[in-house]
Amino acid sequence: MSALPILVIGGGPAGMEAARGIADLGYKVVLVEKHGSLGGMPVQANYAALTPNFQDAGEAMAGMAAHITDNEFVDVRTDSMVTNATGSVGNFEVTVKNGAGEEKLSVGATIIATGFQHFDPGRETQQYGYYEYDDVLTLVDLEKMLKTGEVLTPSTGEPPKRLCFIQCVGSRDRQIGNEYCSKVCCGVAAKESIEVRKLVPDCKVFIFYIDMRMYGYWENEIYWPSQEKYNVNYVKGIATQVIKKGSRLLVRGEDTTMGRPMEVEMDMVILSVGMEPSEGTKNMAATFGIKLNKYKFIETTEGCLNTVTTSVDGVFACGASTGPADIEDSISSASAAAIKAIAVVRKAEMAAG
Amino acid sequence: MSALPILVIGGGPAGMEAARGIADLGYKVVLVEKHGSLGGMPVQANYAALTPNFQDAGEAMAGMAAHITDNEFVDVRTDSMVTNATGSVGNFEVTVKNGAGEEKLSVGATIIATGFQHFDPGRETQQYGYYEYDDVLTLVDLEKMLKTGEVLTPSTGEPPKRLCFIQCVGSRDRQIGNEYCSKVCCGVAAKESIEVRKLVPDCKVFIFYIDMRMYGYWENEIYWPSQEKYNVNYVKGIATQVIKKGSRLLVRGEDTTMGRPMEVEMDMVILSVGMEPSEGTKNMAATFGIKLNKYKFIETTEGCLNTVTTSVDGVFACGASTGPADIEDSISSASAAAIKAIAVVRKAEMAAG
Repeated sequence: MSALPILVIGGGPAGMEAARGIADLGYKVVLVEKHGSLGGMPVQANYAALTPNFQDAGEAMAGMAAHITDNEFVDVRTDSMVTNATGSVGNFEVTVKNGAGEEKLSVGATIIATGFQHFDPGRETQQYGYYEYDDVLTLVDLEKMLKTGEVLTPSTGEPPKRLCFIQCVGSRDRQIGNEYCSKVCCGVAAKESIEVRKLVPDCKVFIFYIDMRMYGYWENEIYWPSQEKYNVNYVKGIATQVIKKGSRLLVRGEDTTMGRPMEVEMDMVILSVGMEPSEGTKNMAATFGIKLNKYKFIETTEGCLNTVTTSVDGVFACGASTGPADIEDSISSASAAAIKAIAVVRKAEMAAG
Repeated sequence: MSALPILVIGGGPAGMEAARGIADLGYKVVLVEKHGSLGGMPVQANYAALTPNFQDAGEAMAGMAAHITDNEFVDVRTDSMVTNATGSVGNFEVTVKNGAGEEKLSVGATIIATGFQHFDPGRETQQYGYYEYDDVLTLVDLEKMLKTGEVLTPSTGEPPKRLCFIQCVGSRDRQIGNEYCSKVCCGVAAKESIEVRKLVPDCKVFIFYIDMRMYGYWENEIYWPSQEKYNVNYVKGIATQVIKKGSRLLVRGEDTTMGRPMEVEMDMVILSVGMEPSEGTKNMAATFGIKLNKYKFIETTEGCLNTVTTSVDGVFACGASTGPADIEDSISSASAAAIKAIAVVRKAEMAAG
């Protein structure tokens, strides 16, 4: 017999990379994506450019998709959901549902790449007025705007004169239960600050931060250029409230470097929202009986030397389904999941003779 | 013909993981390690425990090594160096030298996993007195001490009463040319601070930092426990000088939260040294004609969607050979390199019929 296919759930960067890696080694993949097209969050949320290298997000995702569509080893099923799973390592029977009905498939291993969702800043942090004020946006809303090539204050239709980012919204916040750092928001804000300054050169741009965490090369690739070339102002301070003042927004908080209260007027306020597990991540964990960690991301069980093995043998998780991840992490962990999943189906194939 | 083996250079976590991944899929590996044993930096530098999960480093590396020694698919060559390489993708001829002489091998692809070296704090940052004072150590020296199960002030042989970490030594420093953040030193210092407090419960432990960068889950796994359970004191301040004062060390700098000069006495000062490219990384880049980046790490050429492809077709790099990386990054990127290297030899095999 030939090896059973590997099921990959999720058609974002991690899922596409896993599928490609498997296909490149001549193993079969069924990739199930609930949306009508591949690309995952960068496409669904209409990201303008990737962090840190400013690569056009749509083009980058189309490039990844091209490797797996019209590929004899990859069966791409968009507009589809996995609704049930039985069996065990080497032979899972999964139910895939789409508009035409349900189908049962036998797969040898499963890779969950169902990613994250952006924290909803209206849910628990109402002090920022996300649902009250048109000019309070998120990093994601601003990405969409950057994608259009114009940054305009929503309430006036004019380019902003003053715009700020408020970091760590929905991250590092015990009150809402997300103590973790979402890892990418600092970098994304720095990247977007550069893009705003390029599009609206006379807009003053501020970033209010607790700590700027631009690790590795990001410091040199985006942090220093944003400071030195694009004159973005970094203010170490905690913004606690956004209120309306005339036609503008008033940001209140504390400038911790100066150790004094801060009140500054802005035309636009961008909330740097963190990552939370997506519904798909929580649903697939339930479907396969996989343990979640305290934040409801998928728990990996093998410590820091293996970040893709879950509590269920033969089911692997990669990308942001296991916790906050940048795109580089997601792509690399997808390869780790792919190689382990192939080893599983190869072993099952050899055992079957 | 059967596929040529894949050459993996370096027997640390990344190299061992790459070799294991390749062997698990039934492809052959030659792993060349210059030291007498596998394990890489965690073994060579005698790390006590891994960050963030406190796993015994020696046991963890022995566990990784066990997967690839006595493995029919892996030819492990310790005490060996690659001294020359010719040919191109699909068929490189490399010269491997050991005590017994030189041997030429044909390999289909190459993975460079030659890692990093710790910044030498005596080289350019003499203000900290690393080579002058016995009680000024590095994170690495302290790891060795933790491994023995005792933390003793070198000059007196007594347990320290006051110990501090100075962050960002050799990182984020334009004067010495290392603008990048080394990514792991914050986490390692927080981990070691917990271990010191466990071994010497009445020692006061301070961490002088610019920013603490405990991204993802590290914040919850090590930062908060170090603060709340182990009462480590985090001081936002820049230490600029360490001098001798009587039998103790005097740390001078600025407490930036308080905005005032700082002078504190310590029994032991631990310099949180960053990562630089290893000699092996620079040498192998030269041997294979691969481009380095401005910091002399290996340059990856495909942007954030592919962190292992180098400027030479068929040669991949992973782990800290491409820049600062934690062990999770290293392990994941090793899988990415493995899967791409296998695809190369598989393609060459199919082309040859």
